[in-house]
Amino acid sequence: MEDPKRNDVLNQAIQLMAKLPGVGPRTAFRFLQYLLDGRRDLLRSLGETLLTVADDVQECSSCHGWTGLNGQCDICQNTKRNHQQICVVASVQDQEAIERAGFFEGVYHILHGCLSPLDGIGPEELRIQSLLKRCQADAQPFELILATPSTVDGEATAMYLQQLCHPLNINLSRIASGVPVGDELHFVDRTTLAEAFKRRQRTES
Amino acid sequence: MEDPKRNDVLNQAIQLMAKLPGVGPRTAFRFLQYLLDGRRDLLRSLGETLLTVADDVQECSSCHGWTGLNGQCDICQNTKRNHQQICVVASVQDQEAIERAGFFEGVYHILHGCLSPLDGIGPEELRIQSLLKRCQADAQPFELILATPSTVDGEATAMYLQQLCHPLNINLSRIASGVPVGDELHFVDRTTLAEAFKRRQRTES
Repeated sequence: MEDPKRNDVLNQAIQLMAKLPGVGPRTAFRFLQYLLDGRRDLLRSLGETLLTVADDVQECSSCHGWTGLNGQCDICQNTKRNHQQICVVASVQDQEAIERAGFFEGVYHILHGCLSPLDGIGPEELRIQSLLKRCQADAQPFELILATPSTVDGEATAMYLQQLCHPLNINLSRIASGVPVGDELHFVDRTTLAEAFKRRQRTES
Repeated sequence: MEDPKRNDVLNQAIQLMAKLPGVGPRTAFRFLQYLLDGRRDLLRSLGETLLTVADDVQECSSCHGWTGLNGQCDICQNTKRNHQQICVVASVQDQEAIERAGFFEGVYHILHGCLSPLDGIGPEELRIQSLLKRCQADAQPFELILATPSTVDGEATAMYLQQLCHPLNINLSRIASGVPVGDELHFVDRTTLAEAFKRRQRTES
């Protein structure tokens, strides 16, 4: 897609944008075409904002969510939240999904990924050491809720954390797998159905 | 998707990125997440390059393609190209498709869109005035090849330019519509088939 006749700066911008997930050179060029065509202000603000993000957005020193340069994110600084309940999630997106649901009042720990040996992601690539430090630093009894995804990698990560945290005598839990609320049974895949049956709970009479 | 708990700069970046065509807040966040997660250098270069593009990429003073601050693009400056053949295209993407095909040796005029009354795009929004000036400025006889797309808007634009250029006594032509080369007839849509029959040409015996 690189065209020697095309402007060098434009080529460079296309190459960089094409590195975004799901974006190829054609889409990158469509983005730039859109921005250049009478939207210079948007183009300029986008450039400036990306530089500000690069300089000012850091990982929160305790949960590893995104925050400003002040060290701790708003959730970790919030004294009204239950700091005795740490929900371990794979990504900031997952954290936000839980926040949007609005029921959880504890705090988070974001791993920034799941274990995935095939992709070369081992425990060192995730924020696991700092999770252990958090667990050990806290004198009060607390609960670690493993909310990594219900995928192969997510389950493996939960299992790994379970084994790692077991000697620490922590109250560990894993979020439930089963039929999504509101779904018809015949729309649910067979693995989820089997899991829902395996994890069935006795009803109180 | 905006979350008051999320970093302000990050929110702003998401809002700006979500204005790109086909990108919503979720995709925008995925892009930023990807860039923030250990790819700060890419994030920074992208920001810097977008600013350079905003400052340095301009429309070529004659064909309206993208070029640097030097006024005319490489194609228009190239004396080896046939400046007596101007191919009128809707977008730089279309121009590049023709350039990639490699057969055309003339120069271009990029309209930056097609007429589309429903979207509020009239002749004033396109680079039509400068096309007329180019046609009038040129004393030598030349050909205007209308290569706007084969869509409703593209055909309307070609028709409009045809009527506009007719009194100027220019050699006008429109690229052919028909069955794409290499396609089976049964894969071709009925409008294209009808057009291919309507525009059939007598074979030389």
